[in-house]
Amino acid sequence: MKGLTVVAIVAVALCVAAMTMWKSGLAAVTPEKVSAEALKQIEGEFMKAAQERGAAGYMSYYAEDAVELPDGAPAIIGKASIAKGMGFLDDKNNRLTWSAVGADIASSGDLGYTWGNYEFLSKDKDGNQHFERGKYTTVWKKQGDGSWKVALDMGNKNGMMK
Amino acid sequence: MKGLTVVAIVAVALCVAAMTMWKSGLAAVTPEKVSAEALKQIEGEFMKAAQERGAAGYMSYYAEDAVELPDGAPAIIGKASIAKGMGFLDDKNNRLTWSAVGADIASSGDLGYTWGNYEFLSKDKDGNQHFERGKYTTVWKKQGDGSWKVALDMGNKNGMMK
Repeated sequence: MKGLTVVAIVAVALCVAAMTMWKSGLAAVTPEKVSAEALKQIEGEFMKAAQERGAAGYMSYYAEDAVELPDGAPAIIGKASIAKGMGFLDDKNNRLTWSAVGADIASSGDLGYTWGNYEFLSKDKDGNQHFERGKYTTVWKKQGDGSWKVALDMGNKNGMMK
Repeated sequence: MKGLTVVAIVAVALCVAAMTMWKSGLAAVTPEKVSAEALKQIEGEFMKAAQERGAAGYMSYYAEDAVELPDGAPAIIGKASIAKGMGFLDDKNNRLTWSAVGADIASSGDLGYTWGNYEFLSKDKDGNQHFERGKYTTVWKKQGDGSWKVALDMGNKNGMMK
């Protein structure tokens, strides 16, 4: 009976080892999780990049297949096309700031969104200042290289334009 | 040796049974997956509910803690508050239709979004018809009861208001 006991112990040990390895394998294919709060932080870095490097910094956070839903114009699909409309971020007369209010993320940690408020201070050709307040939604998607990029961005104003 | 073989076979069988049961347990806690296409279908049902039952039908697809980011006004938080602004859907002079263009869903199948175009046909007090085209983003979140509800909704116009 001693031989049988040894065999049974070895079999159970092998079983535990197999389940442990299998579990590790599962963990390896599950994307590293970040919290909704972490998405807000990423959004803070996104704004910092835009403030420091203008349109180039802003666009560096966009996914190649991103969708922009601009206020006052039809949808724009693809990073290259979206970039064409972001030159205003390079004009020192313009100042765009935004702050996340809410965020959520999927349990798989590969898709999430933030929403919040923005302020846009600009100066027209005659030197008159304009101030606009609005809201935005940004959908964030984890990319193949582990970075988070903007999959969709949309904004609208808090007040009707005169 | 025959006895050892039998014990080994039984041990392996128990191991397989244990792993199978464990895997079933995992499947039970993993949300049932739906595709991005399925989210578009849910959105079609959402519009049908709004067309058939007005504001009540529309709001039946909203999560209790939903966020509405209305065009031309600040954010509204919570289903009850959002519902107060949806009475226009009960006015037969208004016709709001929308159609999803894109959609994506997290690999965990518990969070996703749709975006697309809307058309809003309305008649003012003087009987003049107004036609508006715009875009929207809807964030969908799977609820505890397995249903999908709107967690966030936002829209903006394709053209500037005159």
